Amino acid sequence: MVETIEWTSAGVIMIDQTKLPRQTEFVTCRTYEEVAEAIRSMIIRGAPAIGVAAAMGVALGMQQADVEFEKICTVLAATRPTAVNLFWGIERMKRKYAALAGQPHAAVAAALKAEAMLVREEDIEICRAIGRHGAALVPDGRTVLTHCNAGALATAGYGTALGVIRAAVESGKRIDVFADETRPFLQGARLTAWELQQDGIATTLITDNMAGHFMKAGRIGCVVVGADRIAANGDVANKIGTYSVAVLAKENGIPFYVAAPISTLDLTLATGDQIPIEERSAREVTEVFGVPVAPDGVAVQNPAFDVTPNRYVTGIITERGVARAPYTDSLRVL
Amino acid sequence: MVETIEWTSAGVIMIDQTKLPRQTEFVTCRTYEEVAEAIRSMIIRGAPAIGVAAAMGVALGMQQADVEFEKICTVLAATRPTAVNLFWGIERMKRKYAALAGQPHAAVAAALKAEAMLVREEDIEICRAIGRHGAALVPDGRTVLTHCNAGALATAGYGTALGVIRAAVESGKRIDVFADETRPFLQGARLTAWELQQDGIATTLITDNMAGHFMKAGRIGCVVVGADRIAANGDVANKIGTYSVAVLAKENGIPFYVAAPISTLDLTLATGDQIPIEERSAREVTEVFGVPVAPDGVAVQNPAFDVTPNRYVTGIITERGVARAPYTDSLRVL
Repeated sequence: MVETIEWTSAGVIMIDQTKLPRQTEFVTCRTYEEVAEAIRSMIIRGAPAIGVAAAMGVALGMQQADVEFEKICTVLAATRPTAVNLFWGIERMKRKYAALAGQPHAAVAAALKAEAMLVREEDIEICRAIGRHGAALVPDGRTVLTHCNAGALATAGYGTALGVIRAAVESGKRIDVFADETRPFLQGARLTAWELQQDGIATTLITDNMAGHFMKAGRIGCVVVGADRIAANGDVANKIGTYSVAVLAKENGIPFYVAAPISTLDLTLATGDQIPIEERSAREVTEVFGVPVAPDGVAVQNPAFDVTPNRYVTGIITERGVARAPYTDSLRVL
Repeated sequence: MVETIEWTSAGVIMIDQTKLPRQTEFVTCRTYEEVAEAIRSMIIRGAPAIGVAAAMGVALGMQQADVEFEKICTVLAATRPTAVNLFWGIERMKRKYAALAGQPHAAVAAALKAEAMLVREEDIEICRAIGRHGAALVPDGRTVLTHCNAGALATAGYGTALGVIRAAVESGKRIDVFADETRPFLQGARLTAWELQQDGIATTLITDNMAGHFMKAGRIGCVVVGADRIAANGDVANKIGTYSVAVLAKENGIPFYVAAPISTLDLTLATGDQIPIEERSAREVTEVFGVPVAPDGVAVQNPAFDVTPNRYVTGIITERGVARAPYTDSLRVL
């Protein structure tokens, strides 16, 4: 498996997720501004991966000459609004920076670099823990449906939803995967199918609008998705289309699990109604790899996320265990 | 508005719906085999339009030298399995042919040509009647969500679901439309958005997985879709994704209407479980206009239709009026 993001002496290296699976290209960010642009343009995406990239962006900025710490944090925070892990990653670096007050710049820069690399290492460990907790929930001999890419590419490695799938496979369960292609950015077709293919986990690609059909046909044993932000009451913001999958799962009596690190929780928000939803460019909908698929001038809406109310969520799988309703209690305990 | 299908002295002319909206090209079918291939390859698609094409294909075959009537019907019937209008169109031509028994070949060929042109004219009238019955159901000042293309391009003209929208607009209602792009063939993005743009009806294009989000947000006043086959109990086979839209509509208290001619009813089938569902090429999913969007060798499922159980259907709008549950009674009366 290729690495999603790495700190090297040349800069922060990321695999370019806008080009996969047609091209395996790597981007080297030499400044925090380049990291910010990589997050904004979705060269790197996925809530936990964005958190790691933000931490590395802060550390990278502090290696640059004459850059103000607060400026770095402000620029990185303005890249994408929905995934709370972005702000969590920046906050963690701010706390570290505060603890380093009074030390010489070189020492601060070195310590922040070490912290960012630790964030990355921890993210992989967290994903493995999520996998261990979630593997038991996956029914043996059945098909797992997933939406978008909550895989190694959405994290520093291993994945959240795909971490649960990987852990279930490693535990000996015989499962296969249905992957929603996840329009408009096609993370399912381009990233999830590619990742699971590399791991040799049997995967069937479907368009988003087929998921309900296969649920009704009894083909799906459970649904596992990631999350970009989870409110205190268990409402889940995740890739657009997640809400529809959740409603269809409930209608068909299929368990619907969310796999996410604790850093995805935002206990400052009582409900998901308060989560900001990013609206992205119309061209993501009207063009596919630059090929127009709609008439010129058509109006488009392109919300990148939706909010799934807690009543559709069977369980939230974190590195500290599985939360179940009522989430206002169970999430606080975690 | 361009014509979907026309009988001319040069042959049966169809607009090539695989190329819209990027190219406005017309295909001239000079033999019934070419009509069959046009149906199979979706140069023409949409249940009522397929019915018209089948009738014209039969008539065209009888203009050819040394072609057996039964052979023509068999070849045309083998093109696509789900839309019952195909078989309805062929059956209608068979009845006409039987009534012409004993007449000279030239007279039979001329009468079948006239019958096929009548089928086309009637289809437009039927769509206008569907529109009249359906217009009253559309809430004024609200947004209508539609899936796939049940428009002029899916019929000989005017459309079924889009006929309802057009009639509502003509009746003075101030409505706008949300069009699901309808993967994998993108009929919504390519055809519905294009048709409504030409008519000046305000249309917003969304990906299929956004429909639920906008329903939950209160943005959608009602859903109107077409149908490919309706069983005696009111179960509706229509473009893949229709079932999901119907479930989401019910979950959000939004009326879900099906607009279809009587020729779409198949009262020989007690329930929708018996409707054959066409599985199409994986390449429709893995490529968009020839551009690969998934890793090579990925497994794909591509059912072209799904079945929406009658309990999700608020009403079935036909040229003879609106049927409501229990459909086993109301559809038989129509």
